[in-house]
Amino acid sequence: MSAFRTHGRGHLDGPVVVIGTGLLGASIGLGLRGRGVPVFLSDPSPTNQAVAVDIGAGLPLAELGDGTPELVVVAAPPDVTADVAAKALADYPESVVVDIASVKAAILDDLRNRGADLTRYVGTHPMAGREKSGPVAARGELFTSMPWVICPAEETSPDALQAAQALATDLGAVVSQFTPEEHDEAVALVSHLPQVMSSLLASRLQGTPLHALSLAGNGLRDVTRIAASDPTLWVQILGGNAQKVVEILYHVREDLNRLIGTLEAPAAPGARLDLAQLISEGNAGQARIPGKHGGPPQAYSWLTVLVDDKPGQIALLLTEIGEIGVNVEDLRLDHSSGQNVGMVELSVLPDKHDHLIEALNDRGWRVLQ
Amino acid sequence: MSAFRTHGRGHLDGPVVVIGTGLLGASIGLGLRGRGVPVFLSDPSPTNQAVAVDIGAGLPLAELGDGTPELVVVAAPPDVTADVAAKALADYPESVVVDIASVKAAILDDLRNRGADLTRYVGTHPMAGREKSGPVAARGELFTSMPWVICPAEETSPDALQAAQALATDLGAVVSQFTPEEHDEAVALVSHLPQVMSSLLASRLQGTPLHALSLAGNGLRDVTRIAASDPTLWVQILGGNAQKVVEILYHVREDLNRLIGTLEAPAAPGARLDLAQLISEGNAGQARIPGKHGGPPQAYSWLTVLVDDKPGQIALLLTEIGEIGVNVEDLRLDHSSGQNVGMVELSVLPDKHDHLIEALNDRGWRVLQ
Repeated sequence: MSAFRTHGRGHLDGPVVVIGTGLLGASIGLGLRGRGVPVFLSDPSPTNQAVAVDIGAGLPLAELGDGTPELVVVAAPPDVTADVAAKALADYPESVVVDIASVKAAILDDLRNRGADLTRYVGTHPMAGREKSGPVAARGELFTSMPWVICPAEETSPDALQAAQALATDLGAVVSQFTPEEHDEAVALVSHLPQVMSSLLASRLQGTPLHALSLAGNGLRDVTRIAASDPTLWVQILGGNAQKVVEILYHVREDLNRLIGTLEAPAAPGARLDLAQLISEGNAGQARIPGKHGGPPQAYSWLTVLVDDKPGQIALLLTEIGEIGVNVEDLRLDHSSGQNVGMVELSVLPDKHDHLIEALNDRGWRVLQ
Repeated sequence: MSAFRTHGRGHLDGPVVVIGTGLLGASIGLGLRGRGVPVFLSDPSPTNQAVAVDIGAGLPLAELGDGTPELVVVAAPPDVTADVAAKALADYPESVVVDIASVKAAILDDLRNRGADLTRYVGTHPMAGREKSGPVAARGELFTSMPWVICPAEETSPDALQAAQALATDLGAVVSQFTPEEHDEAVALVSHLPQVMSSLLASRLQGTPLHALSLAGNGLRDVTRIAASDPTLWVQILGGNAQKVVEILYHVREDLNRLIGTLEAPAAPGARLDLAQLISEGNAGQARIPGKHGGPPQAYSWLTVLVDDKPGQIALLLTEIGEIGVNVEDLRLDHSSGQNVGMVELSVLPDKHDHLIEALNDRGWRVLQ
């Protein structure tokens, strides 16, 4: 089944019950409350629940009384999600139940094995987060413009599917529909593998002399940025999607072994070709990553402008680029070592590149490329 | 020998001969000409040499006549650098000869085996480049604020060392001194390993369904950015530093095998601990990468601001941040899918974080974190 992007036609009226008031559960509550939807909250930690109530994410679940929720959102940690979802399906026999765990197939299998009523269940995965956790860090806008994957089971009813879509779109997210298997394969590749490769690389930096690290450039910084992620979270994610991740890692190991063989005999016939193939295959894969706003990959032209490293310089540069009438597609600050000069790398549409360089030079900016 | 940062005390007077007028050679010529230093150019390709002369990088070598160069810069491809440097040492018996290849120990060994006069030779490595090649892409400011590693041999005379340092500092680079072995080990780790890991990851994206790639976020984009690098160049770099790179890759393979074993039995005792260790070791390594301007790693606080995706919005935001009086340490644009809303991630010193959020909220900006 191929995925398609859909936009929910309905909105939630509530009441909505959110079970689990960590960062994501409390953010869902806040976002729905901001739309006027009645929300009731439950968390095994009375403190977490009280904080979530205090910040306005909803009312304590006890206040729902005999009411029937339109939707129950299970926002528990991945390893207890199936338990909590099964109990919710039993406790609320008239309600749609969704979960938001970052791995999908194992939870669905678990629920099916328990004989849960899957017509009312929808697995989902909002791809949003923060470096902080807990209800204190919650924000109603956390899901704005972020992907929210909806993974209905074969048994899921159209009404349940629509409620899940309404949850995501009411919170401003962009909905995609995948099967649970497709989802787990996709995130293994686009999310879990990058984490693994970044962590494997960064862990090599542990014992290095600091003067070697002084040569670090943007390449190293880019590749290791996500190596700063939270171990507790990633243990659950990698453990929960172990099979899909390990299948990709077998291929990585094959490529790594081939590369090691080549580098052990760099003068052997074919060694240069092997190395060229590794880099070329990386070129080909990298070029397939979609561009900004989900559009097709687009080749931008880059230029670098030297600025003094003090407040206001980058703003002034961008103001003048706005006056010149060119839209900046991407922007990075280059951390050069040892001098108080900043480099601003800008990407623009290729047909604007030469014009922008000329116009910036005319205005006295130092443009490197 | 530990590395130290030094600032050349002298300047070059010339004449300087540059052998090889590709991107780097022609850029060196341009930069020195900009300081008034006489430069003479030679390239096995008459076209390359003519272009370099035309853009003002220097005069044809024939016009040097009987003059004795102060310095000869060998800017040939890595795999012919030793040949060209040996010939230069023989042809100009009074001159200092430096090379600029990105791998150092093998070239020094080669020259020593030939019995070259190493008192007049200095291996160097300017860590600068562009995505384009050839003399047309040359810029006199290419080396501004970039690291330039100087790797004297034990035989190198103080005068020769000083000439190499003067070359780098005259071109605005930041000089570090390493032994050739130290250099090759350092770049294997901070430059060659990131390239390998990024290429290995990106090559996995080749056969993936595009809808899976639609879930790509900044994590994947960061880790694969340098996978777009030029295969021809990287064949020479990886081939020239094969031994140092493969030694690191043995450790990566050990870690990868351990991870694969863990993911094959994710419910086994100790599996969670193994996964936590991988991510934690990545945390520890990543935290050792030096911060902006070569200073110690510094924890910045991040915040995200929603802006309309149209010209002038980011400039306006940065102008107002300047008015608020906060210095932006780093800045990234977040490519959210499917909506024309941009997210600007800003890092600031931790003690400015809350003040900035409050001030931006007061001015009507939508701040997410």
